[in-house]
Amino acid sequence: MMSPAIAASSFSVLGQDYSLAGRSVHPSASPPRRFYKSHKISRGSRKFNVLNCVATPPAETKAYTTKVYRNANMEKLRAGYLFPEIARRRAAHITKYPDAQVISLGIGDTTEPIPEVITSSMAMKAHALSTVEGYSGYGAEQGDKQLRASIASTYYCDLGIKEDDIFVSDGAKCDISRLQLLFGANVKIAVQDPSYPAYVDSSVIMGQTGLFQKDFEKYGNIEYMRCTPENDFFPNLSTVSRPDIIFFCSPNNPTGSAASRDQLTKLVQFAREIGSIIIYDSAYAMYISDDSPRTIFEIPGAKEVALEISSFSKYAGFTGVRLGWTVVPKELLFSDGFPVAKDFNRIVSTSFNGASNVVQAGGLACLSPEGLRAMKDVVSFYQENTNILVDTFTSLGFNVYGGSNAPYVWVHFPGRSSWEVFAEILEKTHLVTTPGSGFGPGGEGFIRISAFSHRENVLEASRRLKHLFK
Amino acid sequence: MMSPAIAASSFSVLGQDYSLAGRSVHPSASPPRRFYKSHKISRGSRKFNVLNCVATPPAETKAYTTKVYRNANMEKLRAGYLFPEIARRRAAHITKYPDAQVISLGIGDTTEPIPEVITSSMAMKAHALSTVEGYSGYGAEQGDKQLRASIASTYYCDLGIKEDDIFVSDGAKCDISRLQLLFGANVKIAVQDPSYPAYVDSSVIMGQTGLFQKDFEKYGNIEYMRCTPENDFFPNLSTVSRPDIIFFCSPNNPTGSAASRDQLTKLVQFAREIGSIIIYDSAYAMYISDDSPRTIFEIPGAKEVALEISSFSKYAGFTGVRLGWTVVPKELLFSDGFPVAKDFNRIVSTSFNGASNVVQAGGLACLSPEGLRAMKDVVSFYQENTNILVDTFTSLGFNVYGGSNAPYVWVHFPGRSSWEVFAEILEKTHLVTTPGSGFGPGGEGFIRISAFSHRENVLEASRRLKHLFK
Repeated sequence: MMSPAIAASSFSVLGQDYSLAGRSVHPSASPPRRFYKSHKISRGSRKFNVLNCVATPPAETKAYTTKVYRNANMEKLRAGYLFPEIARRRAAHITKYPDAQVISLGIGDTTEPIPEVITSSMAMKAHALSTVEGYSGYGAEQGDKQLRASIASTYYCDLGIKEDDIFVSDGAKCDISRLQLLFGANVKIAVQDPSYPAYVDSSVIMGQTGLFQKDFEKYGNIEYMRCTPENDFFPNLSTVSRPDIIFFCSPNNPTGSAASRDQLTKLVQFAREIGSIIIYDSAYAMYISDDSPRTIFEIPGAKEVALEISSFSKYAGFTGVRLGWTVVPKELLFSDGFPVAKDFNRIVSTSFNGASNVVQAGGLACLSPEGLRAMKDVVSFYQENTNILVDTFTSLGFNVYGGSNAPYVWVHFPGRSSWEVFAEILEKTHLVTTPGSGFGPGGEGFIRISAFSHRENVLEASRRLKHLFK
Repeated sequence: MMSPAIAASSFSVLGQDYSLAGRSVHPSASPPRRFYKSHKISRGSRKFNVLNCVATPPAETKAYTTKVYRNANMEKLRAGYLFPEIARRRAAHITKYPDAQVISLGIGDTTEPIPEVITSSMAMKAHALSTVEGYSGYGAEQGDKQLRASIASTYYCDLGIKEDDIFVSDGAKCDISRLQLLFGANVKIAVQDPSYPAYVDSSVIMGQTGLFQKDFEKYGNIEYMRCTPENDFFPNLSTVSRPDIIFFCSPNNPTGSAASRDQLTKLVQFAREIGSIIIYDSAYAMYISDDSPRTIFEIPGAKEVALEISSFSKYAGFTGVRLGWTVVPKELLFSDGFPVAKDFNRIVSTSFNGASNVVQAGGLACLSPEGLRAMKDVVSFYQENTNILVDTFTSLGFNVYGGSNAPYVWVHFPGRSSWEVFAEILEKTHLVTTPGSGFGPGGEGFIRISAFSHRENVLEASRRLKHLFK
C-alpha cells in the first residue's frame, strides 16, 4: 500500500530511530540501556540471581531479548497504519517549512465545535458524578439502556431493530477489531477496493490473511472487490469468490459514493445466496442527500445476513470524544443456528467495559430533538465545504467523484501515483490530502480530499489548488 | 468455573429465552421472525430474487442461518463472564425478594463520588469542545502527551519509564484483550490461580488454549499457578512449565494479597531465566499500605521482561468513566530483538483510537497535587471499609486473608463450595459477594468480599454477617 521508503520510515512511530535488518530490529541496533551484573546469593532454600543496575553498557553489548516470538501476523503488516503515516509526513513538512500555512484536508478529522446542547449534557453528567445521588460506577457493557433505545428509535425506526440489538461502543474503529475477535482467524473477508484501512489491517492482525503480495499490493486470502467509476463504485459480485465476511461501507470512505437501494438489494441477495455475513459501515449515513438507504436494514432480508457499525464521530464532532454503536440483529445466526449477538455480547463483556458514562450522556443529548437539529447543522456545514471542493476540481477539468452523499471528494489523476500526487500537492500548496492508494490498489491514481475543515481553509485550499492546476 | 445449571442459564444474557441443544441454539427454538417469499424479477441483464416481507412464519419454519461457522474459540468459553452472571443472580434475588435491602459487596464496583477537582476538569473540557478555540478532534491513539508524561512522572519517577513508554487506555480490561491481539494465538499464558477472569477468558477467545477440562476446572494449555495461604499466595515457580506470557496481578484480585519485594524479585528473575514476558496488573497499587512494590518496575531487570497495565478505576471512582494505561518499556524485546512497544503501538493505532479527550482531561486532574490528595482520600475511605470487614470475619472465627493491601477480603469456608456459600449468604442476608471459584479452581472454598460500598452498607453487612455466622 506504500512505497518501501515509507515502509522503512514507518518504524519511527514511537519517536525512535532504529535501523532495520529485515523485519526485525537487530539487538545491537536498539537504544543503549542499563544492563545487569548478577551475583549468586542465597535466600531461603534455593540459590538465585539478584540483579543490580551497574551502568550503561558499552555499545557492543547485546541487549537482553525474551524468548517470546513476535506474532507472525504483526510481521505481515506493511508500513504504518495510513493515517499516522500521513501525520508523520505532515510533521516532516512543517519542519521543512516552519512558516507554511499548512491546511489539512487529509485524515478526515472534524474541525467544528460540538453543539453546546451536547457538551453541556456531558458537563452535567461529569458534575453529577461528584455527587452521592448522581454517582454511578460500572455501566452495562452493552451501553446505557436509554441510549440503546434512543439509537434504535432514531436510526432504525420501523425496521424491527430493538434496543437490545444495539451495542454502544467507543467508536466504529474499535468495534471492527472486536468483530474480528468474534469471528476469529478462520474466516475469509472481502472488502471494497479501495476501503478504510482498518478492515484489512485488523484482518491481518487476526491471522485471517496470507502474506502481503507486493506484485498485487494485496494480502493473500482477502477478496478485494474493485470499486471504480466504471462499475459505479459497486463491485461485480459475480466475480467474487465466496467470503465469510463482507465489509461494506456506504457512503463509502474513501470514494464518497453511496450505494443505491438496488445495489444494496443485490448485495443482501448475494450474501443470502452464499451465506456470508455483511459488516455494514454506515458511519457517514447522515451525509446522504438523495434517497439512498441510510442503513442496510432498509433492505428486506438484511437482518439475517448483516450487522451494522456506526458512529457519532462525523455527526457531532465526536472524533476525540469517542462514541459509536454496532447493531447485531437477533436474527443473524451462525451456520449452527447460534446467534451472532450472543457471542458479540460475550466479546463486549470480556474485552470491553462499555463507553464512558460521561460520553454516553453526550450521545443521549445528540439524539434529543435539539441535538438532532444541531447535528444536521454540522453535517450541512461540511456538505457546503464538499460542494466548494467538488466545484474546484470540476472547474479544473478533473474527473471528480463522491461528495454529494459523503464528506469526501475522490479526484482522479490518471496515470499518476497517488503518493506522488500527495507529495506534489503538499510540497507546492502546503495542503495535506490522502493518497488513494493508501486505501488499497483500487485507489491508485486517486486522491481523497476531506471536507472536514474550517470554511476559510476550504476557500484558501480552493485558491491554492486553482493556482497549482490552472 | 460454574455449575452446569449456571452454564445453561447464562444464555439469557441478552434477555432471550432460548432452549439449548448442545452448544448451539436449534433454529426452530429461536424467536419467531419475519420470513421472506422470493419471486424472480428482471433488473438489468440478469435475474435475481427480490425478497418481500410477508408474515410471521408458522412455528415449524426453519430460521435462515448463514454459512459462517461459529468461532471455535468462542464455543470453548464456559458459561457467562463471571460478573454479568453475578448481576443476573442478584436480579433474580431481587425479583424473589422485592422488598429486600440488597447490599452488594460483589463485583467490586466503586460507590463514592468522584472528587470535584476531577469532575470539574472533565466538565471544563466538555465545554471547551463547544468553542472554536477549545475544540479538538482525533487525539493521539497513545494518549494525550501531557497525561502520558504525568503518569510517567507520578507513578514511575526515577524508574527509567518515559512518557513514550506510556499508552493511555479506556481501562486495563480493554488493554488485556489488545495485548492478547498483540501476542497472538501461538503463545502459552500462565495465570495466578485464582485470578481475575479476563486473563483466562481473553486467552480462550484468542485461541491460545485447549478445551475446558471439566475434571480439573481448567482450560488446556494454560498454566494455573496455585496461590493459597500455604504458599503465602505466591506460586511455586519451580513447578511452572515455561509460559510465554505470565499474567501477575498484585495487589491481587481476588485474594487481596500483595507480593513482597523478594517475591517479585524471584518472579522477574524467573522470567529472565526462561525468557517469558510478565503482564503485571497494578490496578490496586495505591491500596498498598506496607513497603511492597507499587510497580513491577521497582524490581531491577523488570524493564526487559515486563509490561504493566493499570487503571484510574479504583483510585478515582472511574469504573464507569473508563481510563487506564499500559507501560511497555522500549527495553522489552521479542526473541528477534523487535521491540514489543512498536507492535503494541500498531495495535493501538489499528484497533483503538485513544481514550475520550473529555475523560483524559479528568485523568490529568487526577494527577494534579489536589487530585492526588483527593484520590488518596477515596482510597483511605475504602481501606477503612476493608478493616471493618476483616474485623467482622475475624471475630466470627474465619480465616481471613487480603485486606491490608487491597480493597478485597478473601474468606475461607473450608470444605464448602464457593457458589453454595455465595447462595447461602445472598439468600439469608441479601448480601451479594463473589464466589472464589469464579476466579479459578484455586478459589474454591473461598468468598471474595469487596470493600467498595457506602459505609452504612458495610456496617449493616457486618451486622447481618455476625447474625448469620454467630
